[in-house]
Amino acid sequence: MSSIKQTLEQKGYDVWSIDVDQVVLDAIRLMAEKGIGALVVTEHEKMIGVITERDYARKIALKGRASSNTNIRDIMSDTVFYASPDNTVEECMAMMTEKRIRHLPIMEGDKLIGLISIGDLVKAKIAEQKFLIDQLLHYIHS
Amino acid sequence: MSSIKQTLEQKGYDVWSIDVDQVVLDAIRLMAEKGIGALVVTEHEKMIGVITERDYARKIALKGRASSNTNIRDIMSDTVFYASPDNTVEECMAMMTEKRIRHLPIMEGDKLIGLISIGDLVKAKIAEQKFLIDQLLHYIHS
Repeated sequence: MSSIKQTLEQKGYDVWSIDVDQVVLDAIRLMAEKGIGALVVTEHEKMIGVITERDYARKIALKGRASSNTNIRDIMSDTVFYASPDNTVEECMAMMTEKRIRHLPIMEGDKLIGLISIGDLVKAKIAEQKFLIDQLLHYIHS
Repeated sequence: MSSIKQTLEQKGYDVWSIDVDQVVLDAIRLMAEKGIGALVVTEHEKMIGVITERDYARKIALKGRASSNTNIRDIMSDTVFYASPDNTVEECMAMMTEKRIRHLPIMEGDKLIGLISIGDLVKAKIAEQKFLIDQLLHYIHS
């Protein structure tokens, strides 16, 4: 069972965050710059939530708001869900499925060290299964 | 190797589309209603593109546009990429990776019969690998 630590080593430890008092337009600008779909939201440098492209798609124009004058606080998911680098890929997939979230912050103690998407996890899972299949085929043919 | 036909049977053949002359706000409203992140775009009932949450996140507020008066035509991806139900999961994953797209329309002849996301494909791939692993383990233990 591979751990999240291994997934982070593959994906990289970059995690982009934004202050809760900035406006939504700042968040989608940063997402576009970095080529990503989610940011960790911080207040006084402490993680208090996550904002995603989906939050933007569901809670700005459809609710009659404008991204230039809506605070991130008003549309973010103020999640308390996170995992540790020692959790397994399976544990994190199960948590994300149960909580219906697509991004999971990874905390080491009280330090934010990464943000994992469901896409990162399925890539890790496919690689893990491929490794196991290769091992089994090798065992059968030797 | 499992085919896209099998993936569609699992996922369902629902495919939501919207006319190219509607505005972007109509598209994100339909996505929210259906709980999805992408729509096929049609003109005279013929598929001419795809519009996704990401198009909205990258090409409305950031380009100084408003979703209520921007036509879908102006921000959609006018893709000509699609697959057939007889393609394999691997072929479609390869195409989506190469073209850097996350949604792939499925055409049977000239009829649109589904829209597959990269998430649908990885779920199918994981199930396929699990089946193979179970078969191999059974073979070894029998």
